[in-house]
Amino acid sequence: MDPASSKTKALALPLHILGFEIDELSTTRVTGRLPVSQICCQPFKVLHGGVSALIAESLASIGAYMATDLKRVAGIQLSINHLKSADLGDIVFAQASPVSSGKTIQVWEVKLWKSRKESHNKTLISSSRVTLLCNLPTPSHAKKMYRTHSK
Amino acid sequence: MDPASSKTKALALPLHILGFEIDELSTTRVTGRLPVSQICCQPFKVLHGGVSALIAESLASIGAYMATDLKRVAGIQLSINHLKSADLGDIVFAQASPVSSGKTIQVWEVKLWKSRKESHNKTLISSSRVTLLCNLPTPSHAKKMYRTHSK
Amino acid sequence: MDPASSKTKALALPLHILGFEIDELSTTRVTGRLPVSQICCQPFKVLHGGVSALIAESLASIGAYMATDLKRVAGIQLSINHLKSADLGDIVFAQASPVSSGKTIQVWEVKLWKSRKESHNKTLISSSRVTLLCNLPTPSHAKKMYRTHSK
Amino acid sequence: MDPASSKTKALALPLHILGFEIDELSTTRVTGRLPVSQICCQPFKVLHGGVSALIAESLASIGAYMATDLKRVAGIQLSINHLKSADLGDIVFAQASPVSSGKTIQVWEVKLWKSRKESHNKTLISSSRVTLLCNLPTPSHAKKMYRTHSK
Repeated sequence: MDPASSKTKALALPLHILGFEIDELSTTRVTGRLPVSQICCQPFKVLHGGVSALIAESLASIGAYMATDLKRVAGIQLSINHLKSADLGDIVFAQASPVSSGKTIQVWEVKLWKSRKESHNKTLISSSRVTLLCNLPTPSHAKKMYRTHSK
Repeated sequence: MDPASSKTKALALPLHILGFEIDELSTTRVTGRLPVSQICCQPFKVLHGGVSALIAESLASIGAYMATDLKRVAGIQLSINHLKSADLGDIVFAQASPVSSGKTIQVWEVKLWKSRKESHNKTLISSSRVTLLCNLPTPSHAKKMYRTHSK
Repeated sequence: MDPASSKTKALALPLHILGFEIDELSTTRVTGRLPVSQICCQPFKVLHGGVSALIAESLASIGAYMATDLKRVAGIQLSINHLKSADLGDIVFAQASPVSSGKTIQVWEVKLWKSRKESHNKTLISSSRVTLLCNLPTPSHAKKMYRTHSK
Repeated sequence: MDPASSKTKALALPLHILGFEIDELSTTRVTGRLPVSQICCQPFKVLHGGVSALIAESLASIGAYMATDLKRVAGIQLSINHLKSADLGDIVFAQASPVSSGKTIQVWEVKLWKSRKESHNKTLISSSRVTLLCNLPTPSHAKKMYRTHSK
């Protein structure tokens, strides 16, 4: 398994199963990509909106966890606007970045874009805000795992 | 494959892959259940909040589609509050019901509860609102599929 | 000034100015009403959606504050769905109740209904969720004020 | 009354009453400012979160209305994250801009910043998303009013 796959498998197993791969991973930026395959789609053969929400919640959680120096975080609220559909065969790019980083509460923005395989143009398809509670104790096995996979 | 599995596979493939099964399916109520297995969890071994969001978006979309007499719907906004965690081994129950059913816009509420395998007690773990746009044309192959799987 | 007016003035001054009056006030229920006058409307002579949001945030904050035994609370997220419009001359009824009451985070639901002056029928016009952070210290002058106005 | 006051009075009466003034008004940008006075505050003498929501809903609605060439719009969903408090005496700056401008649905982002009277530094205090339905007929008196006040 290549490093991106193995990182995603360890940090966000449900995303890994859907074919998502994490690219960058830092305290201020988490990115990744998803080829839109059949298993990510609703019956109309467009990306399932719930998959977009799953990506948003995942990347924000991972970012917030990195940003709190590996203290456990818990997503408490997610709001997502679905702006455009993405079709079977598109590539979806995701980027999470912090909006606000308090000691107790963090808010992250996650944006998703799509592009056709041949094209360099990206179109924004969703915009979300994830609110996370950040002052929770972390099991040591989990700390080790994130340290291994971040750069 | 039993009927619940096959229904979920047809109507919400990403949920099917995570182990979710749709139970009831009508114009005013969509329900289902998910055994919390490893592939639904984040690294802290609790249900991934993004999976809750995926369930909410799925059930609301299916319900809204039923309620509009199989005219295509598109989720445009999802807001979810994560209230409690669910652990590996818990069973999660989900129920979607309409809050408002306009001709153009529908709003559905989706609630998730958890229970331990041995217990009859259910604890609310998340509450969400899904806003859907409802006046879209439907491909005929999709109509046929929903008709087959609804009761 | 009658007691309802004076209570609202003390606890939610911006609402008081728009004509809102708090009725009930307890740890599990906050209610009130607003006659839809010109100053609550947008230019199309319907209730301004932002006024609905202001009512939701106010009632949830007051309720959460009561529920935490007068420890200071702070609203961190509000999500509101506007379902129907209310017209100039309608009466709007509001009710806030807790969805989840953790030690650190509370989530309240606030619903608004409208009725015509002559009618007993009420129609749901908006549904919202307010997320509040609850472990904050309170200045003593504020404690005294809430104690005076709650029953 | 100066032009900014009179514009706000015509387009957003509830905001005018709280002391808000609209500055810029175009199809891609609506801005304004609010001196945080007593009537905008909750009992802890900080800006009422509901007032932030009212500002967000107002500016997004006005912007969406401008952007649809004066076809009537209706806010259907508002999600706001309150990030920092603003104190009595602070000046709050607001800016609305479109995230997505479909024919049926528009999504606007509204950000609020605070600054001390003497200072040029601005701190982000809230971030919101307003979802609007845009294909509604407009009464002619309303069209005239917006045309008068936009530049």
